[in-house]
Amino acid sequence: MRDFEKIPAAGNGLLDRRVFLRGGIAGGSVLLAAKAGSVEREAWMKAPGAPMDDNGEPSAHEAHVKRTSVRSTPGTTGTGVSFTPHEHLDGIITPSRLHFERHHSGIPAIDPGQHRLVIHGLVERPLAFDLDSLGRYPTVSRINFLECSGNSGASLAPQPVQAPLSAVHGLVAASEWGGVPLSVLLDEVGVKPEAKWIIADGADSPMMSRSVPMDKAMDDAIVALYQNGERLRPSNGYPMRLFLPGWEGNMCVKWLRTIKVTDQPAMTKDETSKYSDLQPDGSAKLFTFPMGVKSIITNPSFGMQLGSAGIYQVSGIAWSGSGKIVRVDVSADGGKTWAEAALDEHVLSKNLTRFRSAWSWDGSPSVIMSRAIDERGNVQPTRAALLENRSSGFFYHYNGIQAWQIAETGEVTNVYA
Amino acid sequence: MRDFEKIPAAGNGLLDRRVFLRGGIAGGSVLLAAKAGSVEREAWMKAPGAPMDDNGEPSAHEAHVKRTSVRSTPGTTGTGVSFTPHEHLDGIITPSRLHFERHHSGIPAIDPGQHRLVIHGLVERPLAFDLDSLGRYPTVSRINFLECSGNSGASLAPQPVQAPLSAVHGLVAASEWGGVPLSVLLDEVGVKPEAKWIIADGADSPMMSRSVPMDKAMDDAIVALYQNGERLRPSNGYPMRLFLPGWEGNMCVKWLRTIKVTDQPAMTKDETSKYSDLQPDGSAKLFTFPMGVKSIITNPSFGMQLGSAGIYQVSGIAWSGSGKIVRVDVSADGGKTWAEAALDEHVLSKNLTRFRSAWSWDGSPSVIMSRAIDERGNVQPTRAALLENRSSGFFYHYNGIQAWQIAETGEVTNVYA
Repeated sequence: MRDFEKIPAAGNGLLDRRVFLRGGIAGGSVLLAAKAGSVEREAWMKAPGAPMDDNGEPSAHEAHVKRTSVRSTPGTTGTGVSFTPHEHLDGIITPSRLHFERHHSGIPAIDPGQHRLVIHGLVERPLAFDLDSLGRYPTVSRINFLECSGNSGASLAPQPVQAPLSAVHGLVAASEWGGVPLSVLLDEVGVKPEAKWIIADGADSPMMSRSVPMDKAMDDAIVALYQNGERLRPSNGYPMRLFLPGWEGNMCVKWLRTIKVTDQPAMTKDETSKYSDLQPDGSAKLFTFPMGVKSIITNPSFGMQLGSAGIYQVSGIAWSGSGKIVRVDVSADGGKTWAEAALDEHVLSKNLTRFRSAWSWDGSPSVIMSRAIDERGNVQPTRAALLENRSSGFFYHYNGIQAWQIAETGEVTNVYA
Repeated sequence: MRDFEKIPAAGNGLLDRRVFLRGGIAGGSVLLAAKAGSVEREAWMKAPGAPMDDNGEPSAHEAHVKRTSVRSTPGTTGTGVSFTPHEHLDGIITPSRLHFERHHSGIPAIDPGQHRLVIHGLVERPLAFDLDSLGRYPTVSRINFLECSGNSGASLAPQPVQAPLSAVHGLVAASEWGGVPLSVLLDEVGVKPEAKWIIADGADSPMMSRSVPMDKAMDDAIVALYQNGERLRPSNGYPMRLFLPGWEGNMCVKWLRTIKVTDQPAMTKDETSKYSDLQPDGSAKLFTFPMGVKSIITNPSFGMQLGSAGIYQVSGIAWSGSGKIVRVDVSADGGKTWAEAALDEHVLSKNLTRFRSAWSWDGSPSVIMSRAIDERGNVQPTRAALLENRSSGFFYHYNGIQAWQIAETGEVTNVYA
């Protein structure tokens, strides 16, 4: 008898995380008996391989792994979104080339030698910083998720969207962000006592503009210059962006150009015409800062196809704008029973956390789902609970539980459960 | 008086890490007074930007940031090395496209659908695993450095090499590596009691082959399938490689094809004709597993040019194959006095740790260097101490302290000190 058979499972074959961490799949059917010492050399072993090069690109066999569902407003090419293909990814870092995009009028072609960050307003001495001068300041780096507040909004549709996971949940990604603490730059210009907010503007043509409370600016905000070890890429704000760990993506103003220090928020177009949350009484909640606690099973997910009954890995990502993920539960019976998932080694504050469970699928129709809990005790809500007191015009900040239906055929579809 | 002026500095203007974390550069000369509200919009703000796309590429202004000094054995294109350009990078993650290469006959064009990992030898049932079956096993991910044992060997030259840092120290990089614990697969095939080693072979045409003790195989070794969230790239072993956290790079066999379980090491060509360490008595030390404790200042480094006297950030990377970095000291007077550097937030075991100091350069000729200490108490040696009992034929595992000379002109050169 194998180890995992001795340990009680949750409903419908979900195995305890202790089993997961040491279990085999015992699957004679998916494994091939090998004849030792008799393996014929493949064609690619019979000649020298490809040369070394300047930039190592992904395999041509992985060409399908790209930003998906590039969507722009009719009549434009740069006003819209592209999504991170989490259904093809693993781990807790997103390759920079696959980081989602949300632009309001495309990617400006900034000459880094000409670009300046100007800090002005309620300060002792307004200053302009170029890339060289910023490089002389204290720098920090930290691995954090970035999520668009509109991520998962497609889950508000009356019927579940039958499309790859990324088309629904692909507006979140994780990177190492490196740059200068904004507090250091604010100290350098000398913030006046009456200052309570900053207004950050981008160098894109619509000039993205957001108000940020001074407390956050002085806490963990940075002027990011590096992403995953190299300079930011143009679609992520080259040569510099504001980064506010845990807060909604649009506030992390790309192509950061000016910061005005003020005593009140600015009520910018970007925080009134959108990025505010309509309440049932008709009022709009102007500011919702940290992103909620959330998780998604990425594998299996929509469009995938399980084989025969047997043991499968169920894997996904969990995150919270309020700190660390402390637990993720997984259900294989539509939420009736739950098993605790294993978490990958690096559980970092305000970053994607990778969770995994082993599931002994018996081949019958099943509904799988995950539920994340953060260090402040926030629990990811069900879709029904989330919608209960929500205005129908409230699009942003959807963090309800995602369920996937596994049919007898092994086909995976999106389902509300 | 600014804060940092109250705190004692180490020799030649190196400032305490506490200052670094909150200090400005107070540098009127490098900062531009800004006229609030009068900033003319740049050309790129006056028209819509570039469209969104499938893969976000780096800025054309960063085209110089690529793998450097691609070097191959005369008559070949794929037998050699390319280097990670740490002089242009920051943080603790290396973009996959910039991960160094060391190939023995190029990159095989493997069809992932045909590739199998066969585990055989002293096992109960030899098995062949394809990518699909591996995907059903427990997976883990972890951020670790990978270093070629020949990294920094150029520092053995009688005179210091005057070339960019990467040409000397660029055979180290850090990634998130995700895959199946080898222990799980070994349990699945059933290792016989007399088994003490595994022999791992690659699917490249010279069939890279290395012996690994069973203890490591059962500890933290993985069959890596993912690098920085996506599938391995071909130059890093697509579709699978062995990964042994903290151990020398060539043992982390790329394009992993067979693992033979044995009762002794195999004395393969790759561990006898090279990758062994010649001792003063003429014998060869066959196996040197964990990489030593090491650090390098990446900025400033060779070829860079400081401006006028003033405060500069001194930044670099430190790592150890034996665990976490606990401290990095920095000197600006050729090792006479040392100041403790600040470490970035994520100090991960067997990974690059980013350190930083603030240096108030007075404009006089100076020698800067760094010294790392790991959690086992290992201290990075000086070059002189390292060479003291070393055979002249012993090329690998150089982890001596790197010094950079700053001339009065601000020019940075390589120096032995």
